[in-house]
Amino acid sequence: MSTPSVPGGGPEQPADAATPSRPPRRVTIAAIAAEAGVSVPTVSKVLNGRSDVARATRARVEEVMARHQYKRRSRGPSPSGPPLVDLVFHEMESEWALEIVRGVETTLADLGASVVLTASEGKHRPGQQWLDGVLARRPLGVILVMSTLTSNQREQLESRAIPFVALDTDGEPPAGVPAVGSTNWDGGMAATRHLIELGHRRIAVISGPKDVLCSRARVDGFRSAHERAGLGYDPDLIRWGDFYIAGGYEHAMELLSRPDRPTAIFAGADMQAVGVLRAARELGLSVPRDLSVVGYDNLPLADWFSPRLTTVNQPLQAMAKTATSMMLTLAEGKQPPALRVDLATDLVVRESTAPRPHGVRS
Amino acid sequence: MSTPSVPGGGPEQPADAATPSRPPRRVTIAAIAAEAGVSVPTVSKVLNGRSDVARATRARVEEVMARHQYKRRSRGPSPSGPPLVDLVFHEMESEWALEIVRGVETTLADLGASVVLTASEGKHRPGQQWLDGVLARRPLGVILVMSTLTSNQREQLESRAIPFVALDTDGEPPAGVPAVGSTNWDGGMAATRHLIELGHRRIAVISGPKDVLCSRARVDGFRSAHERAGLGYDPDLIRWGDFYIAGGYEHAMELLSRPDRPTAIFAGADMQAVGVLRAARELGLSVPRDLSVVGYDNLPLADWFSPRLTTVNQPLQAMAKTATSMMLTLAEGKQPPALRVDLATDLVVRESTAPRPHGVRS
Repeated sequence: MSTPSVPGGGPEQPADAATPSRPPRRVTIAAIAAEAGVSVPTVSKVLNGRSDVARATRARVEEVMARHQYKRRSRGPSPSGPPLVDLVFHEMESEWALEIVRGVETTLADLGASVVLTASEGKHRPGQQWLDGVLARRPLGVILVMSTLTSNQREQLESRAIPFVALDTDGEPPAGVPAVGSTNWDGGMAATRHLIELGHRRIAVISGPKDVLCSRARVDGFRSAHERAGLGYDPDLIRWGDFYIAGGYEHAMELLSRPDRPTAIFAGADMQAVGVLRAARELGLSVPRDLSVVGYDNLPLADWFSPRLTTVNQPLQAMAKTATSMMLTLAEGKQPPALRVDLATDLVVRESTAPRPHGVRS
Repeated sequence: MSTPSVPGGGPEQPADAATPSRPPRRVTIAAIAAEAGVSVPTVSKVLNGRSDVARATRARVEEVMARHQYKRRSRGPSPSGPPLVDLVFHEMESEWALEIVRGVETTLADLGASVVLTASEGKHRPGQQWLDGVLARRPLGVILVMSTLTSNQREQLESRAIPFVALDTDGEPPAGVPAVGSTNWDGGMAATRHLIELGHRRIAVISGPKDVLCSRARVDGFRSAHERAGLGYDPDLIRWGDFYIAGGYEHAMELLSRPDRPTAIFAGADMQAVGVLRAARELGLSVPRDLSVVGYDNLPLADWFSPRLTTVNQPLQAMAKTATSMMLTLAEGKQPPALRVDLATDLVVRESTAPRPHGVRS
C-alpha cells in the first residue's frame, strides 16, 4: 500500500470522490460566507470543527454548504501531527471486535497512523459530539462498524473531504457510500446445506436482529438451502435475537425444550453458539450426538470450544484491512476499484456437527 | 467526576504533579534555547512534537530540557478539538483487553474525550513513533497497559506536562509513576488455598512470563498458601508461560501426561484455562471429577465455559476506571489521593473445582 500523501488539493483531484455521480460544485468559501451572512474566517472555523462559533451561526453555515454541496478540495493536514483514523463500533463485544481492530491497526502500522476508537454504546449511529470531534481532529478517514451516519452527518464529512467506509453494515448503505462486507447469504446457505446433507430435517436458526441486514441475509440463505433441497422448514424454528451469548442460550433453551425439538441449530454468531452449547448441556443433550451446532464468524476462540465449533468463517481481519485500504485510497483523492466489496465466507467443519441422530423423527 | 478544565498554567499549579519529590525547576524556554544554541520557536516546535525540526537539533533540545528537568506549566489545549486520551496495550487479546477499553471509555464518556488506541504488538514498550504522535496531539494523558516507558520517554512526557498512569504493570514502575493494579499475590493465595482445602496435594500452577511482575506475585501466593498449610510443593509443577490459550494447552498436556500428574491446575489467565480444559478433554480427564481447574481474571466468558470456571476475579473494568480517573486528576494539575492503587481480587467458585479424586496418591 502506498503512503497517502497529504492531499494537496490540486485541480486534477476529483472534487467528490465518494459520490462520483454528483457533479463537482465549485462554490467558494467567500460565497458561502456571503450567503450565510458571516465572515470567511467564521466559515473556516465551522469547517474545522472549532467550538468557538455560536450554534445558530454554525447551523446556518452548514445549511448553506449543504445546499450548495460545498466540498473542500482536501482535508488538509491533521492539526495534531501524525495522522489519525476514526474507528467507530456500535458495540465492542468479544473477539469479533478485536479481529476488526487488529485488521485496521495492521493496515495503518506502516503509516504511523493511530486509531481513535469510539464505541457508540449499542447505538447504530454515533452522536453529534463524536462528529464534532472528527471535524476538529481531521482524521485521514472514518471506518464505521455496523454503524450508519445520518444524511446530515454524511454531508458534514463530505464537505470536509473526510472519507468514510462502512464495514459490515447494519443496513443497506445509501448509494455512493463505500462499504465492505461479506457474503452473508452464502454463509447462511453453506451452514444450512451442511446440516441438510448430514440428514437433519428439523433445523433451527438463531439469527441476529431482524432489522440488521446481515442477519436477514443469513436467514434467507437458510431458507434457500431448504428450498433447493426440496425441503420445507418450520417457520417456528426461525428465531431473531442478538449476537450475544445470553440470547443464544435463551433461544436454545426454548427450542430444545419443545417436544419436536430441532436436531440442529445454526447460530448467527460464535458467541450465540456458546449459549446454545450451554443450553444443550443443561438439558442433558450431547453435541454433536444429540444436537448439531453451527456457529458464525470463526473467531479464533471457536477452535477451542468444547466440542470444537463447526462455523462459517467470516474474514473479519481481511474485511477490516480492505475497508482501511479503501479509506486510504479515498483519502488520497483516488477512487478505489470498487465501492462495494463483499469478501467470501466459507464453512469450517469441526466437531460440533454430525449426522442426524437415529430415532428422531424428521 | 469533575470535568478537567484545560489547565491554565496558573502559578498556583504544582509544576511537577507526577513526581512531587523533585523540586520544581523554573528554567525558561529562552534559557533552554540559548543553551541548545537554537531559537525559542525551535524549542517550542520540539515541545509540540512538530516534525519540522532536524533530528540532531531535536535531540540537543531534549537533552538540555532533560538536564534542567524542564517542565511545562501545562499541557495546553489539544490542537485537535475535543480531548484525546492515549491508551496503549502491549497486546490486544481476548475479552481481557475489551474489559479495559470499556472501563476507560465509560470514564471518558461524560467528558466527550476520545481514546487513541495503540497496540504495541507484544512489545512491552511502545516505540518512539508513538511518542512523537503523543507529543503532537497532546492528549489529556496516557494510560499504559502492561507497558512501560523508557526513562527518556518519561522525561519527554513529563516535560510536556502530559500525565501517564500504568495499568497492571508488567514490571515494578519507577518511583513516582502512578500505577493501578490488583492484588495478584492475594489472588494466587486464594486460588491455591481453595484447592488445598478441597484436599488437593499435587497442585500445578501455569503462570505468565517470569519477568512480568503479576505472574511472579501469583506464583508467590501459590507458594505461600502451601507454606501456611504446612505443605510442600513440587517445584516441577510451577510453570511459566504466556497468558494465552495455546500456552495453557501445551503446559497442561505435558503436566497431565506425567505418571504423577497433578489433580489440580491453577491457570494464570482464564484464556490459559481454556487450553487446560482442552488438554484434559483430549486426555480423557473429566473436569472437575479427575482434575480441578482455577482460572484468573473472571472474564465475562468464564461463566459460560464448560464447566463454568472457578476463577480469581480481577476487576479489570474498575482498574481501568481508577487509572483513568487518576490520569484525569493529574491532567487537572492535582494530586490523586494515592499514586499506587491495587484493587482487591476475590475467588469466584463455580463448577471447575471439586474435592481431590479418591485413589489418587498425594
